Amino acid sequence: MTAPSSLAELRASIAALPAGDECAAAAIRARQARLTKPLGSLGRLEELVEWLGRWQGQKAPRLDRVEILVFAGNHGVVAHGVSAYPASVTAQMVANFAKGGAAINQISRSVGAALRVVPLHLEKPTRDFTGEAAMNEAEFLEAVATGFSAVSPEADLVCLGEMGIGNTTAASALCAALFGGGGSRWAGRGTGLDEIGLERKRDAIEASLVRHATEHGDPLHAAMIFGGRELAAILGATLAARQYQVPALLDGFVASAAAAPLSRFRRGGLDHAEIAHCSAEAGHRGLCAELGKQPILDLDMRLGEATGAALAVSVVKAALACHLGMATFDEAGVDERG
Amino acid sequence: MTAPSSLAELRASIAALPAGDECAAAAIRARQARLTKPLGSLGRLEELVEWLGRWQGQKAPRLDRVEILVFAGNHGVVAHGVSAYPASVTAQMVANFAKGGAAINQISRSVGAALRVVPLHLEKPTRDFTGEAAMNEAEFLEAVATGFSAVSPEADLVCLGEMGIGNTTAASALCAALFGGGGSRWAGRGTGLDEIGLERKRDAIEASLVRHATEHGDPLHAAMIFGGRELAAILGATLAARQYQVPALLDGFVASAAAAPLSRFRRGGLDHAEIAHCSAEAGHRGLCAELGKQPILDLDMRLGEATGAALAVSVVKAALACHLGMATFDEAGVDERG
Repeated sequence: MTAPSSLAELRASIAALPAGDECAAAAIRARQARLTKPLGSLGRLEELVEWLGRWQGQKAPRLDRVEILVFAGNHGVVAHGVSAYPASVTAQMVANFAKGGAAINQISRSVGAALRVVPLHLEKPTRDFTGEAAMNEAEFLEAVATGFSAVSPEADLVCLGEMGIGNTTAASALCAALFGGGGSRWAGRGTGLDEIGLERKRDAIEASLVRHATEHGDPLHAAMIFGGRELAAILGATLAARQYQVPALLDGFVASAAAAPLSRFRRGGLDHAEIAHCSAEAGHRGLCAELGKQPILDLDMRLGEATGAALAVSVVKAALACHLGMATFDEAGVDERG
Repeated sequence: MTAPSSLAELRASIAALPAGDECAAAAIRARQARLTKPLGSLGRLEELVEWLGRWQGQKAPRLDRVEILVFAGNHGVVAHGVSAYPASVTAQMVANFAKGGAAINQISRSVGAALRVVPLHLEKPTRDFTGEAAMNEAEFLEAVATGFSAVSPEADLVCLGEMGIGNTTAASALCAALFGGGGSRWAGRGTGLDEIGLERKRDAIEASLVRHATEHGDPLHAAMIFGGRELAAILGATLAARQYQVPALLDGFVASAAAAPLSRFRRGGLDHAEIAHCSAEAGHRGLCAELGKQPILDLDMRLGEATGAALAVSVVKAALACHLGMATFDEAGVDERG
């Protein structure tokens, strides 16, 4: 499969997203009921295995190949003083990823997953969306295609995360466009903004919503106007994951916002994706609710870099290990309910 | 060190619990502030490393040797029909653990921890505590000593869990004695009780609270009267962990209730222990609040067997990997806050 080369093709791809394998899901539920534990007593772990099987299309899901993708981009909106860190940090952190010094390097290794970092034209930030659209159609589609191509069709699970100074402002504006509520609902402190910085962030979001009021009603246009290249790449990667039967773990606020247009554009468009953790970033809990998702972890993290998604891999792996390795009541000679 | 051989010795041990190493904790906080991430952005992961260091007494904590202990016991109170499963299942599940067929076997392997199962006189259930104390002093102290001796002084982290048909009834009665609120506050569905069974369970707890009203005000007496051998063993293991500088992860409702007398007896008595997950069992959220603990995971699990504690090991390991492996701002050449 190839990435969509026009907005029309992208819309057509989303409209034609494949369904999950309900036969695999039913087989997994049936096995769960025979394993040596009270029915449902592994809670979310049982649901996660069913989800894996449904979207891998496998009665016996696999997690031999778990890939972590971190997309990085820069943002014109940082001119408004919306981040506690300078924009130079995006490229510096990409170098830190390459040298193995960042949090995601450690967590990837800890959970046994392969990490790949994909910088997107860091030298060319998106335009300041308080004035004009962050990307034109060609730039947006290029970023979507980069994300799409980054997903391995052979992967068993893909974790999607990001790095980009200023990108919680982009994500907040995108959420406001998709779900309403304005800057005060969605803007948070990002990497650690003070009160005055937060005020500037809210103002920038409000100004951009007014500026683009006639165009941002369409979810894909909203992604182009506010989103940023790494967000567009996550959108493309999430789309590819569905087409390749690769379940996806979305990291925190920015990754969830980046993928949200799929859900707004088409009901069930994110059914193959779980939100890995509830970020401490202000807007994330509300975004999870809008998407109808219960995050797997809630550890007050707000780093990005796919760190929450990578951490959740250990939960999914343990869930699958239980499903595949446990004895049934019959095999173990354990009495069932009295 | 040896296990307390009398109630007086046990009280003296608890009264003299060692404090944490605040110097190690401060060194860990200082390093966290220099690592390449916004301060505090790893949330609970940063707290967990500080906790590890404080209670290991190590500026560079280790997790090379993680031990999972599952204590098993049987309960006279099952005569009241308070469990959905027959009491025979306790021994059958211990056999299942030995053969590697249970959930805890899979999760232990998944997180790289050693599992040890300790059955406590399964052939001799505790007495029905609606009539008399579940254990006499000698029986209680023997179980405490078994738990105490099961902890390796060389362990870096110990996970404490249990198996015992009927033991959520014991745990609920113990919580009611320690924290008030009666059977309706603490009784839950355990392995899957129906409404009538739940009513029987509440009634059994209420009857036992009345029966022992003059004795259960003392936390250790309450543990002896209501607790069960596997709960007493968890109490002893938690005490040993503190003395050996081994941080402890308590599994779900029963394990938390079993260790709770340490906290009721002495402020800070459980500071070296974290609650690994919030169980779906009805009383656990309230018990965590009474103990002033925020569980690490919340995955709607209610299996016991230390499964939640074992799963949380992966979070603690990832937290430590970040702490030990990340570059500092200086090392990575990353700009600090603007």
